[in-house]
Amino acid sequence: MSILVLGTVALDSVKTPFGHKKQMLGGSAAHFSMAARLFTKVHLVAIIGKDFPKKYIDFLRGKNLELSSLITDIGKTFRWQGQYQGDLNTAITLSTELGVLSGFKPRISKEQSRISHIFLANVDPDIQRHLLKKMSSPRLVGLDSMNYWINHKRASLVRLLKDVDIYVANDQEARMLSGESNLIKAARACLSFGAKMVLIKKGEHGVLFFNDKLTFSLPAYLAERVVDPTGAGDTFAGGFMGYLAKSKKITPQAIKKALAYGTIAASFNIEDFGLRRTAVLTKEELERRITDFKKRVLF
Amino acid sequence: MSILVLGTVALDSVKTPFGHKKQMLGGSAAHFSMAARLFTKVHLVAIIGKDFPKKYIDFLRGKNLELSSLITDIGKTFRWQGQYQGDLNTAITLSTELGVLSGFKPRISKEQSRISHIFLANVDPDIQRHLLKKMSSPRLVGLDSMNYWINHKRASLVRLLKDVDIYVANDQEARMLSGESNLIKAARACLSFGAKMVLIKKGEHGVLFFNDKLTFSLPAYLAERVVDPTGAGDTFAGGFMGYLAKSKKITPQAIKKALAYGTIAASFNIEDFGLRRTAVLTKEELERRITDFKKRVLF
Repeated sequence: MSILVLGTVALDSVKTPFGHKKQMLGGSAAHFSMAARLFTKVHLVAIIGKDFPKKYIDFLRGKNLELSSLITDIGKTFRWQGQYQGDLNTAITLSTELGVLSGFKPRISKEQSRISHIFLANVDPDIQRHLLKKMSSPRLVGLDSMNYWINHKRASLVRLLKDVDIYVANDQEARMLSGESNLIKAARACLSFGAKMVLIKKGEHGVLFFNDKLTFSLPAYLAERVVDPTGAGDTFAGGFMGYLAKSKKITPQAIKKALAYGTIAASFNIEDFGLRRTAVLTKEELERRITDFKKRVLF
Repeated sequence: MSILVLGTVALDSVKTPFGHKKQMLGGSAAHFSMAARLFTKVHLVAIIGKDFPKKYIDFLRGKNLELSSLITDIGKTFRWQGQYQGDLNTAITLSTELGVLSGFKPRISKEQSRISHIFLANVDPDIQRHLLKKMSSPRLVGLDSMNYWINHKRASLVRLLKDVDIYVANDQEARMLSGESNLIKAARACLSFGAKMVLIKKGEHGVLFFNDKLTFSLPAYLAERVVDPTGAGDTFAGGFMGYLAKSKKITPQAIKKALAYGTIAASFNIEDFGLRRTAVLTKEELERRITDFKKRVLF
């Protein structure tokens, strides 16, 4: 099954102890796509400005993504500037320029509206809902958000969760949305909002999964060298949704494997700035690290 | 194989959001023993004061522990007062009274000196070395310490690591001893001090294991209700060492299983105050939760 991902395509400037990179190609939809493309055809739904470098368009096209719904508008591309310090666990946002994103109304073709696997990566929940309404036969809908929308559009986000299969959050976001500090209680609260499954990402501490029957936890892949964690969560989601799009049924076993693929995809993302590492990642490399990971986790 | 554990037997007063308990039986050796006793005979080497309640002696004896090296001295039993708030991840020490512990010189019998499996739970590293020197045929030596000794007797502790097979630390201690914030680098530094294996406990985030060949990570068992985490690390060590004492060889597979048994033993410990839960824990309950845990971790 193909995947349709709605999110941002951005120009990221990132400073970490390993260097300072300016206006790299980034954004939630771009990071998601780099992992998901290893499993299936990815349709990217996003907006860019007139300033968006042609080389980045060429790059995305070269990754076999369907770009017909990557629209260009008058104005500037969404820009994010951030910094990481110490153990690189927390991003410090230095500036955000929404640019064309502020007036974004996703447009998709009739064919795209029939895509069954949908990931609503981090953008305004109103835009996420707008897109989801256009979809005629959703079978698996994933949703990511972030603290900004939890603070500013909580009601809209909570309402959206009723139509979502998998809510993907980091621990801080799950706590913030639910008002619960214990992550199991936080997950249960998110389920009570209507999401059928909740996936809590804990960065270097791995991931927790919950539905009404199953709870599941997986450690992260041990990374000695973290260069730039930007987009790790989106890359995780790309690997996770990518694997599920290839699975016939959403069984507990498939979910467990999907979590592992997400974990390993993310472990590559953090090894270099922006999309550098995942842009050249192959399915074979992914499988090889999955095998290694199994040895380090199974008992 | 029997296990000899050196550590503290204490009177703990603990305040958590679930209540306030005074002068409960506690201490590193006591918590360790509650888990290790499910696997093998445990010889407890510790010191108590004249004030130590007889009912606690009877309790320990009832748990089938060998108490001939639990010595009583004139003075007060070691006391610890602590408090946990919020998500109960960090203990706040309110007071520590060393009492008889300050003059402790462990004494063991000739038979005990031949025990091959030894755990040096948290006490002064000079006392740990003193005991280890008495042991004639150590085959597997585990060591735990804490921030106080890392700050005050770092050289003694580092020197001791040369004679240790498994250094057990929490993430904060491993970072403190090594001066490295990345846990893989921290573990490698600890290995370079001479420990053959390093085990880093991350509380609710699980555990990491390192030797020169193998790295291994395991998430914690998801706990919704944490009543009192005091002694969770020692209980972990008891389950871990207990399992290894029953294993013929220290293979990677045995280590993985031992980590799981430690994890599950600790998951019981935190469910109630002090030793309440682990005191009544059976091997069957432990096995049942191991089976459940496998389902939630394997992929």
